Amino acid sequence: MAPPAAIEVLGDSDTTGITIPDPLAVPIRTNDILGRRRKTESRQWGTAAPCDTASFRLKSYAGKPKAKRWDHILTEEAKSRKGSSLKGAAKYLSKPGLISLGGGIPSSEYFPFEELSVKVPARGHFSEEETRKTGVTLTAGKHDLANGKSIFDISTAFNYGQGAGSAQLLRWLTEHTELVHDLQYEDWACTMNVGSTSGLEAAFRMFTRPGDMILSEIYTFAAAVDCATPLGLRVAGIPMDDEGPLPEAMDDILANWDTSARGARKPRLFYTVPTGQNPTGCTQPASRRKALYKVCQKHDIYIIEDEPYYFLQMQPYTGQNSPDVPPPASHEEFLKSLVPGYLSFDTDGRVMRLDSFSKVLSPGSRTGWVTASQQIVTAYAKAADLSTQNPSGMSQLVLFKLLDEHWGHGGYFDWLIHIRMSYTARRDSILAACEKHLPPDVVSWNPPMAGMFSWLKVDFTKHPDYPAESIEGIQDKIFLGNVDHGVLLMPGSWFYANAEDEHDTLFFRATYAAAPAEKIEEAIRRFGESIRKEFKL
Amino acid sequence: MAPPAAIEVLGDSDTTGITIPDPLAVPIRTNDILGRRRKTESRQWGTAAPCDTASFRLKSYAGKPKAKRWDHILTEEAKSRKGSSLKGAAKYLSKPGLISLGGGIPSSEYFPFEELSVKVPARGHFSEEETRKTGVTLTAGKHDLANGKSIFDISTAFNYGQGAGSAQLLRWLTEHTELVHDLQYEDWACTMNVGSTSGLEAAFRMFTRPGDMILSEIYTFAAAVDCATPLGLRVAGIPMDDEGPLPEAMDDILANWDTSARGARKPRLFYTVPTGQNPTGCTQPASRRKALYKVCQKHDIYIIEDEPYYFLQMQPYTGQNSPDVPPPASHEEFLKSLVPGYLSFDTDGRVMRLDSFSKVLSPGSRTGWVTASQQIVTAYAKAADLSTQNPSGMSQLVLFKLLDEHWGHGGYFDWLIHIRMSYTARRDSILAACEKHLPPDVVSWNPPMAGMFSWLKVDFTKHPDYPAESIEGIQDKIFLGNVDHGVLLMPGSWFYANAEDEHDTLFFRATYAAAPAEKIEEAIRRFGESIRKEFKL
Repeated sequence: MAPPAAIEVLGDSDTTGITIPDPLAVPIRTNDILGRRRKTESRQWGTAAPCDTASFRLKSYAGKPKAKRWDHILTEEAKSRKGSSLKGAAKYLSKPGLISLGGGIPSSEYFPFEELSVKVPARGHFSEEETRKTGVTLTAGKHDLANGKSIFDISTAFNYGQGAGSAQLLRWLTEHTELVHDLQYEDWACTMNVGSTSGLEAAFRMFTRPGDMILSEIYTFAAAVDCATPLGLRVAGIPMDDEGPLPEAMDDILANWDTSARGARKPRLFYTVPTGQNPTGCTQPASRRKALYKVCQKHDIYIIEDEPYYFLQMQPYTGQNSPDVPPPASHEEFLKSLVPGYLSFDTDGRVMRLDSFSKVLSPGSRTGWVTASQQIVTAYAKAADLSTQNPSGMSQLVLFKLLDEHWGHGGYFDWLIHIRMSYTARRDSILAACEKHLPPDVVSWNPPMAGMFSWLKVDFTKHPDYPAESIEGIQDKIFLGNVDHGVLLMPGSWFYANAEDEHDTLFFRATYAAAPAEKIEEAIRRFGESIRKEFKL
Repeated sequence: MAPPAAIEVLGDSDTTGITIPDPLAVPIRTNDILGRRRKTESRQWGTAAPCDTASFRLKSYAGKPKAKRWDHILTEEAKSRKGSSLKGAAKYLSKPGLISLGGGIPSSEYFPFEELSVKVPARGHFSEEETRKTGVTLTAGKHDLANGKSIFDISTAFNYGQGAGSAQLLRWLTEHTELVHDLQYEDWACTMNVGSTSGLEAAFRMFTRPGDMILSEIYTFAAAVDCATPLGLRVAGIPMDDEGPLPEAMDDILANWDTSARGARKPRLFYTVPTGQNPTGCTQPASRRKALYKVCQKHDIYIIEDEPYYFLQMQPYTGQNSPDVPPPASHEEFLKSLVPGYLSFDTDGRVMRLDSFSKVLSPGSRTGWVTASQQIVTAYAKAADLSTQNPSGMSQLVLFKLLDEHWGHGGYFDWLIHIRMSYTARRDSILAACEKHLPPDVVSWNPPMAGMFSWLKVDFTKHPDYPAESIEGIQDKIFLGNVDHGVLLMPGSWFYANAEDEHDTLFFRATYAAAPAEKIEEAIRRFGESIRKEFKL
């Protein structure tokens, strides 16, 4: 339980007037942010202190509409959450001179940690090689807050926190969200989670009840299905084309929903990975996102936008023999190159966006965040208070030192461009291998624009056992043949949204994220060999 | 989702034969552990690699009984968990030479972290002052595993992991558990969680369904009730004496359970904080634990043993004018001084123990662990795989460096003795203040033997408004009077297991964990003044 902020006891009032470090020693909108960071209440930097992310926004949202209310979709569990009852004490803590013997918060005297340091890349010198040579060591001391050295330190980060996370990192996350998305309603807010898988589970528990069906891509993130199934949920898969789920198909499913045939009431939740989807690698263009959003408005569907790959959007694919497209020349150009998130046209507050550092900084930080309307964020944070609590304070402190005090927003954009170019090279290398080694009559693909995955379509009708053998049967033979040839690709059926549905396609998923280029080429060569053998080419 | 271990891709096979660092350069059982740490499979140190905690045990449990099965108590949700379906790929990954393009695990090349360091106390020099002067800096490099410098590093800890946590830290936790408890059945195991609050929520979801009642102390951890309520649970409070819940009362409640009067089926779960309970400060002696365990056996009740304060067991209280009891002279003596946990006489595998670093190292690590039978641990870890995943890898790496590579088990016991002596001094100081400042006719207490809390009983029958005013009414007057006098104590009613029950006692909880001694005395002085005024003494 995150206990009430023991302000007086912890000497937080000594910390007023700390200089906020320059978060943006960088071209992009620097002065805007520096000018716009408001004078914030120093009490919120204290141990387990609550904060209000609205106070971290850079722009005014006056005149924008308020988000709709979601009481009719939220579960009883979500609506009955009152948060931690002991926080009732918090309102008394502001009394001057009060000594609290209330909260069971340990004294930081008993944390055996005097300093925490990380060696990280200097801005613009991002490779491992450069980091070894020119990397910068960032150090957090135990009492930097009390000493005026920083607004975050070991004594606060390593103590209890709020389920929403620390004000220090939440401010940066809120600003980042605002720099990237053009939010369309007034009462949006951010709150942290211990990673998007936890975020998704929390969302399922907030928005569904056992027996429900949810909507998703017909091929979808396997862990989402694995997470949903024990909660008594099933997934209704929406047929896709190269641009993602088909809005007409989604509308048709919903308009003609047959409760008794489906064995479930009409869905209220659409789970989607709009960018570099796992497993298909598909990226929904803006027009598709808007069309899907309209269908959701028509049928009053709430949207979970899961975006771990958003910043793995790559350079346009020009083919093997054309020159590469040069990297974005500015942060503005970089941000403009990104497909707009659902957040950028969500006027209803109908979207919960899940953001993650897992694919761009470190999965092990187990620190992600949610952006949604205040009603939903509050419900979410109250659930976190009494389950996961805050993400690790050690992670939060490391991320704060790197992102706020060292790189700033601009430096982080530089890093994201570095990642973008690296993934572009990886994708180009797997595509080159595919073009070189795979039989084009049997295996085909679209160049992925984002993410970690090549989604290779296999024409099962050319298989010698077709049509006597099922698609899944042919798939399994290919899978085992691949392993015999020394390569492992993920079978498409492992990503079926609903294994009960009939499927008329056969895919394999190959990731280019992990292995070095020469291993990727060798792997694809083996896959080609395996396919040729299996199809007797 | 914790993806399958991409062994080949990540070059894990290079790491065979690493020398395991000496974990116990200390007297206690040193040679035992050094000799007993088995030759472990180096593959389990790899990225997101699974492990089997049974292989980390120091003793043989052959001949001990197997734990009972809990299928009849586990929920459908828990029983239907199959874990992550993509892990089906894992069995193929051991094929020599296989290249996996399977798991969507990012390359550590893209983690912008070259080194992580913490400055921590040298063994035996534990104060903040000493740490500043003689502290030791522990450093984890990015590729220490591949370089043979350590079995844990940034490239593995900062990547995805298993829901159970890393093998590296799990080994230490398993050994620690075994050193402290004398386990009585064969198939016990450990698994990590993101803290005990999350552990408790997971347990509720595994063992209860909406509408159930659970058993707990009549005054109980408020966050447990706050966590249970939105899940549709209610708590049946067991009357307590100075030694904890009364076994006869518990037996009586269960033997005479009236389903329709209670509006709930007979409970299957007993949630207890046996040591330094929050809020009462009560520590159940071994005899009471055994008696309660027997009642649980009789009625087939599963036990959640929540033990954050286990190592805040203090020295015996000798009163203000007697000499202090000297600290334990050896680790053996220290361990013998601890009340045995339920684990030490649990022959059925009926207990899930929740352990925490929050009160003894850092709440912000958000790294705790569970000890239970293999069936329960497996179900728990599968749930974690698809929700919280592993605790932060940053936290795990920091804890591993400190506990395994630096202090070892013996050094950690030294630290725990240091904490014990510090809390003993804090407790003695609040008791001295209570004896000095509180009117003995109205306020009484037992010296707490463990934990963070003084539980102050107020004789409400002496209040001028009694019996016209209710207990809770009198309590609220005192609470507000306290705030007026500049001191905040937690009202006992905030810890009612069940607010619907009639209560015939009035308490306030005061913590001595956070404030410095002189502030504690001043706070208790103000409380005494407030009580005298309220009771017109």
